Amino acid sequence: MEKSFVIKGNICQTKNPKELDLHENSYAVCIDGLSKGIFAALPEEYSSLPLYDYGDALIFPGMVDLHVHAPQYAFRGMCMDLELMDWLNRYTFPEEEKYENLEYAQKAYGMCVDALKSGATTRACIFATRHRGATELLMKLMEESGLISFVGKVNMDREASEALTEDSADISAYTTFGWINAVKDKFERTFPILTPRFIPCCTDKLMEELREIQMAYGIPVQSHLSESKGEIEFVKFLRPDDPFYGDSYNDYDLFGKNDDIDTDVKTVMAHCVWSTEEEVELMRKNGVFVAHCPASNMNLTSGIAPIRKYLDLGLNIGLGSDIAGGHSDSIFRAITDAIQVSKMYFRMVDEDVKPLVFSEAFYLATKGGGAFFGNVGSFEEGYEFDALILDDSVLPHPQKLNLAERMERAVYLGLDTKKIAAKFAAGRKVI
Amino acid sequence: MEKSFVIKGNICQTKNPKELDLHENSYAVCIDGLSKGIFAALPEEYSSLPLYDYGDALIFPGMVDLHVHAPQYAFRGMCMDLELMDWLNRYTFPEEEKYENLEYAQKAYGMCVDALKSGATTRACIFATRHRGATELLMKLMEESGLISFVGKVNMDREASEALTEDSADISAYTTFGWINAVKDKFERTFPILTPRFIPCCTDKLMEELREIQMAYGIPVQSHLSESKGEIEFVKFLRPDDPFYGDSYNDYDLFGKNDDIDTDVKTVMAHCVWSTEEEVELMRKNGVFVAHCPASNMNLTSGIAPIRKYLDLGLNIGLGSDIAGGHSDSIFRAITDAIQVSKMYFRMVDEDVKPLVFSEAFYLATKGGGAFFGNVGSFEEGYEFDALILDDSVLPHPQKLNLAERMERAVYLGLDTKKIAAKFAAGRKVI
Repeated sequence: MEKSFVIKGNICQTKNPKELDLHENSYAVCIDGLSKGIFAALPEEYSSLPLYDYGDALIFPGMVDLHVHAPQYAFRGMCMDLELMDWLNRYTFPEEEKYENLEYAQKAYGMCVDALKSGATTRACIFATRHRGATELLMKLMEESGLISFVGKVNMDREASEALTEDSADISAYTTFGWINAVKDKFERTFPILTPRFIPCCTDKLMEELREIQMAYGIPVQSHLSESKGEIEFVKFLRPDDPFYGDSYNDYDLFGKNDDIDTDVKTVMAHCVWSTEEEVELMRKNGVFVAHCPASNMNLTSGIAPIRKYLDLGLNIGLGSDIAGGHSDSIFRAITDAIQVSKMYFRMVDEDVKPLVFSEAFYLATKGGGAFFGNVGSFEEGYEFDALILDDSVLPHPQKLNLAERMERAVYLGLDTKKIAAKFAAGRKVI
Repeated sequence: MEKSFVIKGNICQTKNPKELDLHENSYAVCIDGLSKGIFAALPEEYSSLPLYDYGDALIFPGMVDLHVHAPQYAFRGMCMDLELMDWLNRYTFPEEEKYENLEYAQKAYGMCVDALKSGATTRACIFATRHRGATELLMKLMEESGLISFVGKVNMDREASEALTEDSADISAYTTFGWINAVKDKFERTFPILTPRFIPCCTDKLMEELREIQMAYGIPVQSHLSESKGEIEFVKFLRPDDPFYGDSYNDYDLFGKNDDIDTDVKTVMAHCVWSTEEEVELMRKNGVFVAHCPASNMNLTSGIAPIRKYLDLGLNIGLGSDIAGGHSDSIFRAITDAIQVSKMYFRMVDEDVKPLVFSEAFYLATKGGGAFFGNVGSFEEGYEFDALILDDSVLPHPQKLNLAERMERAVYLGLDTKKIAAKFAAGRKVI
C-alpha cells in the first residue's frame, strides 16, 4: 500500500489537446500506483490514506520524453554548427565509441540519469549505444532512478566509424538476443526496446534479423525517420526501390501495426520532419508514434515537422528532447519549442497550418507521448500516477495570477530546471 | 582607483563575428573602468593592482540587451497564443496601465531590475511606460543596480487603451520635456532615450514634437520597426504616402544619421523582421541599429528577421530579449535563439541565406549591440570593462572539454540562469 496516497494542490492537466483541465486546491488520489481521479473534496472512502498537502503548489502529470540519447548527454550544447550527417560523424560517433569502456559509461550515464531524475521527466524512450555492457549499466541506473523507461541497445552494422560499427549483422543480432534475454525480466520499471539506429546504419540483413527478434520477443521498436534532407537522400540511395523512407522499416514489420500479417509492433519514430503524404498515411494506419523534437530540428537545421497536420490526421504524437541534437533535457522546454516552431511553420511556410496552442503542446508532452506507455500522462481514473509538484513561488510576479497563467508561466520560464519539489512515477516517489 | 584591477581566468570573446577569441588562464586588466587588453602573463606595470583570480572560471564580456520592456516583465511567459496587435490590446496595455500607480511600479520594477542585475546583462535599452513618475523610479532602480542603461518614457497618443493613451501630443511632449530635464544629469549610469512606442501609437503631431525634443537634447531614440505583418499594414493605412515603415521615423529625423540636415541620431529599432530592401538600405546608410529579438518573433508569430543578410550588408545589429514578447531575459538564450531561427530561415525560406554560427551570434550579443553604448562588448584595449565570471563546473560532463566547447556549452545550457559568479559594468562590480 506504499503506493496509495492522496496529494493536494493546484492540479493542471490536459485531458484533450483543446483545453486545459484545471483544479484549484484539489485532491488527486493514487491507489496502488493508479489514479482514481481528481476531487474538489476528498471522498470519504479515501480519508484514511496518507495525505500530502502541497499547499499552493502546482501539480502536473509527469513529462514523457519519447526520444533521448543518453550517451549524447555528455556533449549537449556543443558542436551545434553542423547538420545531421556531419554532426554524427564528427561528434556523435566518436563520443559514443567511449561507451565500450564501462568506467566511462558509469560516469557519463550517471550524470545523464541524475539529470533526468531531477528534472520533469517521468518516462523516457532512450537510445544507449551499440554496447551491450554499457546498455545494461544504463538500464540498472535508470531502474535505480525510479523513472520508467524503455532503453535500447543500438543496432548499427554499417556507415558509422569503425569502432562503432558492429562487425556483422549476425553479431549485432546475436548481441541483441543476449541483451534482451538478460534484461527482459530483470527490472520493474526499465524495459528493452529494439533500436535499429536508422536505415543508413542498418544493412538489410540486420533489419531481417531484427524482424525475427521482434517477433520472438514482441518488444517495441524505436528509430529515426525523415529527419533531414541529406539523410533522406542517403536512404533513397541505399534503398532505391522503397517509395518512402518509412517503407524501409515497414518492409521488416518494424513500423507499427500491420493487419496483413496480424502484428502490432509498438513503434516510435523520431522527427518525421519531411515525411511524405504516403509515409504519414502509413504511420497513421499503423499507429506509429511520432517523437517530435523541435529543438533538435532547429539545432541540426533539419526543418520543422508539421505537427498540426499530424494532429489533425489523428497520428500518435509525443515530444522528445533528443539530447544532444536537442541541447536541453527539459520537456517543458520542448513544449515551448514545439509551439514556437509551429508558429514559424505557419508564418514562413504555410499559413493554412495553424500554430499549436499551449494546451496542445502540453498534451503532447503528457498524454500524447504517454500513450506509448499505456494510460499515462493524466490524473484521469485508471491512469498510472505520474506527478510533478512545482513550487512556482520562486518565479516572482507583482500581480495576481490565475491558475492557467501560472501553468503556462511555469512551463515557459522553465520551472523544471530550477526545482521540482516532488515527483512520482506510477505512484512511486522519485524525488 | 577602485575601478582599476586585474582579473584572471579563461577569457572568451569575439573581436569579430567570424571567430572566437580565446585566452586560457589569462589576465584582463581594467584601469579606471577601461580595458587595457588581455595578457597571457601580467605585465610588470600592472603587478601592483588588485588581482582577482577566478581560477578555472570562464570570463565573458557582459551581455547587451538592446530591447527590453521593463513593465512587461510581470507577465513574461504568459498569454503566448496571440499575435502582436491582439497581444498588445489584450495583455500588454492593461498591464502597462498599472504603472500609473507608483506602489505597483516599485514592486514590479524591483523584480525586473533584480532579474537583470542577477543575470548576464550589463547594458540595456529599456522601454518603461508612458508614465513619467514610474519611469523615473525605474531609472533610479537601474542606477542602483549598477547596470548601465538607456531608459525611455514611452510616447503614445493614439491607438491604445484609454488609460494608456496620453491626452494629446502636446501633453506627451510636455511630459517628455519635464522628464528629460529631470533625469538627464541625475545619474551616472542611467540615461534617457526618446521612445515613441511605434508609429501606430504616435500621431504625426507627436512625432513632430519628438523631433524638436531630440534636436534640443541630442538624446538617442528607440522604437519598433517592421515587426509583424498586421502592424505593417496598419502603418501603411495610417501613413499611406510613406514608401516604407522606416520612412515614417525618418520623416521626423528620428532614424539615425541624416547627412542632408547634418544630424546623427543614435537610433535602435527593434525587430526589422519584414524590412523591405529600401528600408534596409536606409538603415544601413543611417547607421540605425537593429535589435534582433528572435524569441519574441517566434512567440508572437511575427516571422524571422534575416539577420545574415543584415550582417553581410554591414548593418549595426545587437540582440534583445524583448521581454515580454520574449519570455526570457537571458541574452545567452537570445544567442541560441538567434542561431536557431537563422537555421529555420535557411532551411524553410531561403537556402542562399546561411545560418548564423555561434561566434556570430555571440558577437551580436556583445560587440554588436555594445556599439550602441560606445566601445563596449570586448576586452580589447580602450573598451569599457564589462565582464561576467561564470563557474561552469556546475554543468557536469564526463570528458575533457576545450575552451571553445566550454564557451558554447555555457551559452546553450543557460549558465547565466543558474549563477553568475561575479559581474562588472564599466569596471564597477555589480555582483
